[in-house]
Amino acid sequence: MSLITTITSSANPQIKKIKSLELRKYRKEYGVFLSEGLRSVIEGVSLGFHLEQLIVHHDSLGRADVQKMISSCKGAVLSVNDSVLSKLSHKDNPQTVLGVFRQKISMASAIQNGIWVGLDQVRDPGNLGTIIRTVDAAGGQGVILIGACCDPYAPESVRASMGSIFNVALVSMTEESFMDWRKTSSLEIVGTALQTDTDYTSISYKKDMILLMGNEQAGLSETLRGACNHLVKMPMRGRADSLNLAVATGVMLYAMPD
Amino acid sequence: MSLITTITSSANPQIKKIKSLELRKYRKEYGVFLSEGLRSVIEGVSLGFHLEQLIVHHDSLGRADVQKMISSCKGAVLSVNDSVLSKLSHKDNPQTVLGVFRQKISMASAIQNGIWVGLDQVRDPGNLGTIIRTVDAAGGQGVILIGACCDPYAPESVRASMGSIFNVALVSMTEESFMDWRKTSSLEIVGTALQTDTDYTSISYKKDMILLMGNEQAGLSETLRGACNHLVKMPMRGRADSLNLAVATGVMLYAMPD
Repeated sequence: MSLITTITSSANPQIKKIKSLELRKYRKEYGVFLSEGLRSVIEGVSLGFHLEQLIVHHDSLGRADVQKMISSCKGAVLSVNDSVLSKLSHKDNPQTVLGVFRQKISMASAIQNGIWVGLDQVRDPGNLGTIIRTVDAAGGQGVILIGACCDPYAPESVRASMGSIFNVALVSMTEESFMDWRKTSSLEIVGTALQTDTDYTSISYKKDMILLMGNEQAGLSETLRGACNHLVKMPMRGRADSLNLAVATGVMLYAMPD
Repeated sequence: MSLITTITSSANPQIKKIKSLELRKYRKEYGVFLSEGLRSVIEGVSLGFHLEQLIVHHDSLGRADVQKMISSCKGAVLSVNDSVLSKLSHKDNPQTVLGVFRQKISMASAIQNGIWVGLDQVRDPGNLGTIIRTVDAAGGQGVILIGACCDPYAPESVRASMGSIFNVALVSMTEESFMDWRKTSSLEIVGTALQTDTDYTSISYKKDMILLMGNEQAGLSETLRGACNHLVKMPMRGRADSLNLAVATGVMLYAMPD
């Protein structure tokens, strides 16, 4: 079991380092991310993620489920008070447990079977986390981040994923490397775009495939549209000319066979 | 045409009053809400919403489309600078135009034909705005806010609705008044809930109906479940045990016939 260090000041260097994980720069430098809440930490550990640090409110140290996580922690366990916890938490009601986990980005070779969602320069981390949750719920394998995307390990993304960040594979590629990889793969690619008349319900979806979704503002790039076997679109029946990206991804994924 | 007042200080009482619309209390007191961006203001005016005040960056006063909005404004037009605009805006890149519109909540008698979405105590204004956008895109009529919901006119909701706040009818009811109204209506009600084995694709949906969606944490209340003709659920194929509320609403609405 790890040694437990009690920290009472948010000026403590260890706390400051954890706080710095709000910035992408430091998440990248350290290769880790913060996940809030006991349920989420249990999910991470049980799915084999490396728990580097555990931050626990001192009142919760004795709980059996917290003790289990303390045993699973590979590094420092920090016992903290309300004030330190609320400094680290992004929730209105701070959770009693926070975990610092090692990031896990898979290689392109992981893209084999099942349903994958490719996102072209997704910008909003809340959207990205919601998409990760949706891919998990729909039984998909993973998310391919293409081009300059927001960080899947941003606090808003991790929170919106509701624990699914641990159950959905993540691959990151430039547009160029995706196009190169595409030549080597026989997976069918379906993209959503405005530049088509094909309704999304009119084609049949394979059990192994990639669904490409465009950027929130600009849609799918011309290059990526060129990578698709099919382009489809969802009907817009009112005045709105588009759906939120996460909603559109959900509608597409649930239109596919189980 | 309205008189144009130039304001250079964000301490100006008119600016402070507009700024106070960030709080639900003042939106309720004045019966108005703030909408950002020229496209959104044009949408509001063209759909018959009462534009009470218009805030315009001084550089944009001469534009033809802005001039049209100035003519449509029933009250004060305020010409402002960067600093005043960024004080009022919730966007990273402040828009050049903001409109103060009168709220429009419909009576229950508006619920007649078409698809309506009833939301049980929805809490997150971002979710609510995204749902309003989704209802619009799917060709629905309106949203019924049941019980203690967040405010559809909160800045996060208006922004997430992407202009659909002006095209989707809004009705607000207590759970009790919804149950009373329900006795007088012949509309079919379909609710999503965990407490059923009926897959959402296994029933047929009427062209006129209400889709009831539960609260983000607690799902649909027992009372509201009792109001439904059918309870259905969406399959969860991975580890995630639920979808984001707006995603779930989108999946349901797009499963219905056009």
